[in-house]
Amino acid sequence: MPSGASLGEFGRIRAYFAPLAGPGGLGLIDDAAIVECPPGQRLVVTADAIVAGVHFLPDDPPDLVARKLLRVNLSDLAAMGARPRHYLITTALPRELGDTWIERFAAGLAEDQKEFGVELLGGDSVATTGPAALSLTAIGEVAAGGEIRRSRARPGDVVWVSGTIGDAFLGLAVLRGGHVQLGEAARAYLADRYRLPQPRVALGPSLVGLAHAMLDVSDGLLGDLGHICAASGVAARIAAAALPLSPAAVATGEAAARLAAGGDDYELLFCAPRGATESINQLSRSLGLPVTAIGAIEEGEGVRLIDDGGRDIEIGETGYRHF
Amino acid sequence: MPSGASLGEFGRIRAYFAPLAGPGGLGLIDDAAIVECPPGQRLVVTADAIVAGVHFLPDDPPDLVARKLLRVNLSDLAAMGARPRHYLITTALPRELGDTWIERFAAGLAEDQKEFGVELLGGDSVATTGPAALSLTAIGEVAAGGEIRRSRARPGDVVWVSGTIGDAFLGLAVLRGGHVQLGEAARAYLADRYRLPQPRVALGPSLVGLAHAMLDVSDGLLGDLGHICAASGVAARIAAAALPLSPAAVATGEAAARLAAGGDDYELLFCAPRGATESINQLSRSLGLPVTAIGAIEEGEGVRLIDDGGRDIEIGETGYRHF
Repeated sequence: MPSGASLGEFGRIRAYFAPLAGPGGLGLIDDAAIVECPPGQRLVVTADAIVAGVHFLPDDPPDLVARKLLRVNLSDLAAMGARPRHYLITTALPRELGDTWIERFAAGLAEDQKEFGVELLGGDSVATTGPAALSLTAIGEVAAGGEIRRSRARPGDVVWVSGTIGDAFLGLAVLRGGHVQLGEAARAYLADRYRLPQPRVALGPSLVGLAHAMLDVSDGLLGDLGHICAASGVAARIAAAALPLSPAAVATGEAAARLAAGGDDYELLFCAPRGATESINQLSRSLGLPVTAIGAIEEGEGVRLIDDGGRDIEIGETGYRHF
Repeated sequence: MPSGASLGEFGRIRAYFAPLAGPGGLGLIDDAAIVECPPGQRLVVTADAIVAGVHFLPDDPPDLVARKLLRVNLSDLAAMGARPRHYLITTALPRELGDTWIERFAAGLAEDQKEFGVELLGGDSVATTGPAALSLTAIGEVAAGGEIRRSRARPGDVVWVSGTIGDAFLGLAVLRGGHVQLGEAARAYLADRYRLPQPRVALGPSLVGLAHAMLDVSDGLLGDLGHICAASGVAARIAAAALPLSPAAVATGEAAARLAAGGDDYELLFCAPRGATESINQLSRSLGLPVTAIGAIEEGEGVRLIDDGGRDIEIGETGYRHF
């Protein structure tokens, strides 16, 4: 297709999205798709929307936009202990984007479908006079009753987090021209952590039966831990020195308290009884994914961040604001 | 709340959307929702997006916008023979809309939840600098193997359509100031048919085991019948005189061929073997919903519209274009 020409809605679906459909998507020619639910399983469903200029930049690579949208939803499924299976996507796109943008967007989806073993079920493709608005619904499976909620943390639980925190927050600053003192590799690492989250799709389902409560860190570790505490009716105490930071994050010199308030980590934050500690450490080793004990659940309410001397660190703004 | 003030994303979800959540929505406080799938059933899933200024007018009543968005998705489920159960919704809204718009939007959802027995599972609420962009994913249930697809029409099948056709197409013209010669009641009837489709949620599932192929008429009866023919590898012949028109549509004097090319009917168009005729007529009577035989499936390809003298009527533009 010459650039600027348009295949139209049907043409775009046929050219770019139909090849992504699995058997349940019925080739995207029917009014709806079919989802099988194996006996003893429940389906887990989540949806997220993103808008150009709010959640991503209009000149971001379309394949990365697609992969991030898919991954933040897969991260939500993982946070419930569910294995990702299917997704639907709706796009409202300005006409000037053209078919090339969609083609690259669909190529990003194709790449991540392979990586995460998910398939497209259906969706919709419409025009808008405003910025691109994209919505994705992801569907996963979990053994009935195995789903991990936010509301079941108990006093005495250990608080854990996967990977490292604060990288995406710093990566956004890098993409805006900040942290120029860092080396090229560190800057690229942080930017990549912002642009392409790694949903913990293997860890999440493995924690079924081990973790009492879980979520994925999207608004910032401290703020999100606050959500677990509020939903569970408990308090949490976190040791600042225990927060897992990447070498690049350490090199920025940013305070751990600030990194723990940054968003977009998409790491799993969970609470598990002390007795699960060895199983969790073993799981971490077998997955090759660091999982770090950072504090404990207590009676009470709210989240406290404690320094080496046992003093409370001022938390301040814990909610994450998008640019 | 004073008009113009904003509850913010969390506040809006808590105030307006959380009360719509059923048990599977987990109060909208978790990362994802849970869907039970009864033994022997499959889930049927569909998604649609609409944009202000493209699919609805920015000053349309927000409750009607919500109900139409939900209903077009329920219509897609009905077209597969599925009973509607759940939905997720994502909204990208300009800040100037304010909480009052959302409150009225949610009130429309609440009203239709009661009418159709569906419940909210989750979603997302974000800001946009452009026109409102809304996306809804609907989930239904159908007995495994009972789903009705587009691709199984067979030569000899009778072609049926529910309700009357062309009303929504005429209703849009009325809303734009057309058909001024009609009486007030006829104008109101047509406008309502455009603004608030009636998804055939009782008829669709009742046709499982009777209909070979089905879809809902959204792009126009002739164009959509063309989709069934293409997917099934067959042709269709429709008698113009048999097309069911409302008294208001007849009063406009518009040609049946033109009404059969108009969109947004959301009636069910289906193909069933001759032997099912009595069962379908009985079903029509028991539901109090007219269902009309309008033609037949034949060997070949394409759709022909035939006049009283057996001559082909020029079909012309069969695809529907949004304003």
